[in-house]
Amino acid sequence: MNNFDFHNPTRILFGKGRIDDLDGQVPADAKVLILFGGGSAERTGVLANVRKALGDREVVEFSGIEPNPRYETAIKAVDVIAENGVTFILAVGGGSVIDAAKFIAAAAKYDGDAWDIFTSFGGVIKDALPFGTVLTLPATGSEMNTGSVITHLGKAAKLPFRSPHCAPVFSILDPELTYTLPDRQIANGVADAFVHVIEQYLTYPVGAPVQDGFSETLLRTLIDLGPKALETPKDYDIRASLMWTATLALNGLISAGVPQDWASHMIGHEITAFNDTDHARTLAVVLPSLMQDQREAKREKLLQYAANVWDIREGDDDARIDAAIKATVDFFHAMGIDTKLSDYNVGADDIDTIINALTDHGMTELGEHGKITPTVARRILEAAL
Amino acid sequence: MNNFDFHNPTRILFGKGRIDDLDGQVPADAKVLILFGGGSAERTGVLANVRKALGDREVVEFSGIEPNPRYETAIKAVDVIAENGVTFILAVGGGSVIDAAKFIAAAAKYDGDAWDIFTSFGGVIKDALPFGTVLTLPATGSEMNTGSVITHLGKAAKLPFRSPHCAPVFSILDPELTYTLPDRQIANGVADAFVHVIEQYLTYPVGAPVQDGFSETLLRTLIDLGPKALETPKDYDIRASLMWTATLALNGLISAGVPQDWASHMIGHEITAFNDTDHARTLAVVLPSLMQDQREAKREKLLQYAANVWDIREGDDDARIDAAIKATVDFFHAMGIDTKLSDYNVGADDIDTIINALTDHGMTELGEHGKITPTVARRILEAAL
Repeated sequence: MNNFDFHNPTRILFGKGRIDDLDGQVPADAKVLILFGGGSAERTGVLANVRKALGDREVVEFSGIEPNPRYETAIKAVDVIAENGVTFILAVGGGSVIDAAKFIAAAAKYDGDAWDIFTSFGGVIKDALPFGTVLTLPATGSEMNTGSVITHLGKAAKLPFRSPHCAPVFSILDPELTYTLPDRQIANGVADAFVHVIEQYLTYPVGAPVQDGFSETLLRTLIDLGPKALETPKDYDIRASLMWTATLALNGLISAGVPQDWASHMIGHEITAFNDTDHARTLAVVLPSLMQDQREAKREKLLQYAANVWDIREGDDDARIDAAIKATVDFFHAMGIDTKLSDYNVGADDIDTIINALTDHGMTELGEHGKITPTVARRILEAAL
Repeated sequence: MNNFDFHNPTRILFGKGRIDDLDGQVPADAKVLILFGGGSAERTGVLANVRKALGDREVVEFSGIEPNPRYETAIKAVDVIAENGVTFILAVGGGSVIDAAKFIAAAAKYDGDAWDIFTSFGGVIKDALPFGTVLTLPATGSEMNTGSVITHLGKAAKLPFRSPHCAPVFSILDPELTYTLPDRQIANGVADAFVHVIEQYLTYPVGAPVQDGFSETLLRTLIDLGPKALETPKDYDIRASLMWTATLALNGLISAGVPQDWASHMIGHEITAFNDTDHARTLAVVLPSLMQDQREAKREKLLQYAANVWDIREGDDDARIDAAIKATVDFFHAMGIDTKLSDYNVGADDIDTIINALTDHGMTELGEHGKITPTVARRILEAAL
């Protein structure tokens, strides 16, 4: 097992009716910026419950955070904070709104050009406004980690940063808030969480059975409950387990002490930057092709994945790996997610653009061995056409 | 799944050589009380490394914390803190030293009679000195939680408390520090962690596959690696996984959203208070007898335990439960731990004393259903003679 640090100070308030706890979590004298996306937070009544729970605290609202949150929008919220003397940000939404909140919280306390936050991958952040979240969409895990991904349309860039100053103080996870989500968003969330786990699990063995067992538990839960969540949207226990799974998939727990990959994410980000394809769907395209391409480097873990996640125990090594990759693709299809670039209007001629962007963003040595070069990434994309 | 709060702010620094990180974790201007047990911390060189890492910080040392840490000893450290203006406690040892540190940290900031901390189960604690830990014995999980158990010899009482003010600021977990531990302590640690998981797992189903899967992973890891740790004491990966397992067994993660039992612990504490039997060994006596006694109330989970932890899939329901209980006993025996009261000089005549103490301490409705009354506890002990 590798050495590691683990520190996750975010308080989770999980379950039915937990929005009522906001009053005890947000400082009584806070001036609050409520950050949200489109109209659904209003339509579903979540915002009304949030406003009620905040009582007579002074509140400013900022809406319009996009599904792939944009720098150009988020930077406007930084001005709103300065103009109104906001002291606490409350993000109400999914990973996009929470990712935006992290950037806004850091930028509000940063003196230079806020774009430095991305070019330094968060390194320039020395302080941030405190913020909490009310999660409405289980998917990214952003509610219990310090990472964020923002898209800059002007630069056609989708870039990550992280900072220990960007941990939510608290996150409210009420599974009932997910009952009204469209199937497409549930499916995306399940696929996103699934690939988060894979990025931290499907590398090479380092004698870490606890981390492996936890990852396999999360994967099996997603495989079992993902399709059921689409069939029976108001089954509380299913929604609850999916929500907790998505959080645990990216809160630092399963990555502690083990190698990590993240090549599927970095390549996928460039597809989204190229034509705004849903993040999760880019992962469902890249991952199976990457598994196939990297089957030698990942051989031991692919065999373990076949056995412990899919219960594939018949046939020789290569047959079991083939079956596990096929099962992965079938799972995405069962969630209603296509797995080829052509399904998302990306053709062979577009691969140059995507690979050039990857290179421009410094993503030239990806994967747990740093061996996914632009040449390998091109091969992976070409096999996914 | 039940509603839950999860908040665990302790920073874990895990791996080889991490004592060197103390300098970055303890405030530079701290006046430090180093708290430890007997001579092993000195003998193994751990204390020397700790002193070196603390540099020129002012340090006071307090040794002599017992394996079942005593109120009478710990309270003396509170005086040392007051006399020396100590601002930070560093616990170097296993769960006993860390449990003592929690009490001392709280008592140092408490104005009334420190015994109130126990009669209120920690409720009177409103502040505590900050403290960190250097863990030398994986077992209790105390290094990443807010609970503590202290023995008051004068009152023949072994009592728990917990407080959110009693979370370690950081804990250093270096698996190499466990290489020199006696077999007895490794065995006790494995058994203790095993029963910690069982207390949070073996209750009744609430639709929580993630928590169940995590618990089963921890149990399987202990079963697989526990005996190996005795055979090959310097296998780093084995010691590392055991150490991380023991921490995760009681850091709030696997209990989030599920029922908990803890009857084996509460009954076991009274056996230790009676004749100082090792904590873990009292658990190995009580648990199998409690499983047998509560087989109807725990039926569904016992069957799940048989299948997912022990891979017992043959025979009818009762046969599989019998096999799982037998496997549990065999596991304790494989760790060199006896499982009968008579092995620890407790006879039929002593049960009255133990049951009376349980009643005196208010432990009259134990277990996940509150149905382990003193009458049931007596039956469990009598079957364990």
